[in-house]
Amino acid sequence: MRPQIVIFGDSITEQSFRSGGWGAALADNYSRKADIVLRGFGGYNTRWALFILHRLFPLGSATPPVAATVFFGANDAALSGRTSERQHVPIEEYKEDPRRIVRHLKECSPAMLVMLITPPPIDEEGRRAYARSLYGDKAMELPERTNEVTGVYAKQCVELAKELGLPSINLWSKMQETEGWQKKFLSNGLHLTTEGNAAVHRKVARVFNDAGLSAREMPSEVPHHSEIDGKDPQKAFQLQCS
Amino acid sequence: MRPQIVIFGDSITEQSFRSGGWGAALADNYSRKADIVLRGFGGYNTRWALFILHRLFPLGSATPPVAATVFFGANDAALSGRTSERQHVPIEEYKEDPRRIVRHLKECSPAMLVMLITPPPIDEEGRRAYARSLYGDKAMELPERTNEVTGVYAKQCVELAKELGLPSINLWSKMQETEGWQKKFLSNGLHLTTEGNAAVHRKVARVFNDAGLSAREMPSEVPHHSEIDGKDPQKAFQLQCS
Repeated sequence: MRPQIVIFGDSITEQSFRSGGWGAALADNYSRKADIVLRGFGGYNTRWALFILHRLFPLGSATPPVAATVFFGANDAALSGRTSERQHVPIEEYKEDPRRIVRHLKECSPAMLVMLITPPPIDEEGRRAYARSLYGDKAMELPERTNEVTGVYAKQCVELAKELGLPSINLWSKMQETEGWQKKFLSNGLHLTTEGNAAVHRKVARVFNDAGLSAREMPSEVPHHSEIDGKDPQKAFQLQCS
Repeated sequence: MRPQIVIFGDSITEQSFRSGGWGAALADNYSRKADIVLRGFGGYNTRWALFILHRLFPLGSATPPVAATVFFGANDAALSGRTSERQHVPIEEYKEDPRRIVRHLKECSPAMLVMLITPPPIDEEGRRAYARSLYGDKAMELPERTNEVTGVYAKQCVELAKELGLPSINLWSKMQETEGWQKKFLSNGLHLTTEGNAAVHRKVARVFNDAGLSAREMPSEVPHHSEIDGKDPQKAFQLQCS
């Protein structure tokens, strides 16, 4: 069976197989080597993720994933008392939910490489424009997410990764290092543009490479066509399987 | 476990998770419903595919795929005596190899929906330009694939599908119905442009829909976030699992 890398997260993961998406780009990198398994759930926060965790990652599986990305927080950081309040998870709870997710994954397989990814930054003006496009004048003037609060969640995520000795990507802070990140990387103040997807893809691929999960170095399960002798094809397949 | 749809074929399948690719677009459609499993092997013909078939689709699997696309022929149709001769499979053998592939898949699971896809047409001028870009003046003037010969393989593929009662897509003939198909759908005379990928995606999705495998109608394994009560999340998950 081919190794599996599960990408687990919210809408930013769910939408990652759209044109130019970071998940599809990973699947292309790992083509013939590993399967990129899409487990993205739009709108989910870490509290709700816990309800589906056992179903998605059953204990006792004979073939647990070799790696997983855990990419939540954008919904947890939705503000209480605003339009997306239903999704809000208090920061105290956000300290524990991802820890429980990681603990479960490591229980599935202690060897699983678990990578934590913080939410991207918030372009508040982009969110306002998006709300107006949906609700017109009825759109709330107060933002449902702020960049500052999302940053608190991102910091928490990175600290947890450090504490647990896991690789992490601080998207919130990295993206803001680029001039014009608001429109360059984000499409409606929150989700990824093609360039945002490419940035996430580069970072995730680099972390996997550094952790010894480079697609290039993983074994191929079948020979490359150039290794097959047209007159004696069986030879290449015997070599491969021996 | 989530249902699996395997896409099995040559480079046109292997490259289908690149930006705008038809495989990634399917994965996006079936997100939260089914996994699109990429089994594309650049350069492979049906003869070589038979060597890896048992490894990719082991008999006796408790969870065989619910569907598979079988998309070979572009390499089988490479001409004997030309630069890609190594990949050539005589038409008589191409009558039997895909039949053996289908027989094996149906042995894995009689319920598996198997769809045959013909190779796309060949833009001979595009292939010549591509060869010149690689080999300059050393490029052979005689084409290694012709549209006419590939058409013979496509016809054979569609006839086999009819004989076996399987759905099929005659890409070779369908694409040529569009004015300017040569550059619109094909990037180097053989592989797919973004528009070519979109065309393949539309056709594959339609066949799956017509066969009762519509993504929209497949059950979701977990609730949509809008069904989750922020104050009593457990309720939605209990309902879902009962």
